[in-house]
Amino acid sequence: MTQLIEQAEKLANLLTANHQTMVTAESCTGGLVATTLTELAGSSAWFLGAWVTYANEAKSGWLGVDANVIKSDGAVSQPVVAQMCAGALANSDADWAIAISGVAGPGGGTAEKPVGTVWIAVLGRGKEVIAEKFLFAGDRAKVRQQAALQAMTMLVAQLSNK
Amino acid sequence: MTQLIEQAEKLANLLTANHQTMVTAESCTGGLVATTLTELAGSSAWFLGAWVTYANEAKSGWLGVDANVIKSDGAVSQPVVAQMCAGALANSDADWAIAISGVAGPGGGTAEKPVGTVWIAVLGRGKEVIAEKFLFAGDRAKVRQQAALQAMTMLVAQLSNK
Repeated sequence: MTQLIEQAEKLANLLTANHQTMVTAESCTGGLVATTLTELAGSSAWFLGAWVTYANEAKSGWLGVDANVIKSDGAVSQPVVAQMCAGALANSDADWAIAISGVAGPGGGTAEKPVGTVWIAVLGRGKEVIAEKFLFAGDRAKVRQQAALQAMTMLVAQLSNK
Repeated sequence: MTQLIEQAEKLANLLTANHQTMVTAESCTGGLVATTLTELAGSSAWFLGAWVTYANEAKSGWLGVDANVIKSDGAVSQPVVAQMCAGALANSDADWAIAISGVAGPGGGTAEKPVGTVWIAVLGRGKEVIAEKFLFAGDRAKVRQQAALQAMTMLVAQLSNK
């Protein structure tokens, strides 16, 4: 978990330096990114909140993800994480949104999307969404930790590239 | 953290036995309850999702908490956690909602609401809200852990009393 906190601190420093804020929209990580970010004292200055959209109805109802896209592409897909990010920005004043949807296991894996498959998206207000697919190794806890770490790493990269 | 997982397992067993579902609305715990619950494989059967309403605007915008009540009573108050629970049920099909709002510290404490002050509410659909104020000892991490544990304990008590 040390790696998670280290990356959270990097993110905190970059957002603070840029006077920017963020939100998260999390499925398989279940709020792990939000929990990690808010371990840091003073995080309320740059972290506005999170949606843990575990059920598909939450993805659609709270973030406006198209239910037909969840049906056609599955909850673990590029368009779903892209729409989760877009919904998170539409429903907040944040500058950045992170979205995560994956198969943490041990159940739920398929030949096409085995356990460890995770889609992660990062979206800045007025920017193009960046979405990537990962295949993480290990058990449920390991998959969730790697997904959370990777999501923070992707946003750190965006903020460092400015 | 073992205590948290043990209580999460109790909650999982009770909700499963009752064929019921839950959501959380978390402020100072930043998603710790949601993260703990979703550490359990199969949690999607009874856990629908969570709102981490860290900013006051999130409490109002996402869960319908009255902004005037936040102004008059403060974000850490009985009416705010009660309204967070009500908003969580109104925006989901869940049978139960937990809401948590407190001063995790190290900053933010006042004479009236010192660091460690946490309001927790539990609401079942069609029932009266149950809200309690706690004063937890220890640092930020300890306050958050005790708040998360207590919230789960309150819902376990409700489900056991049926």
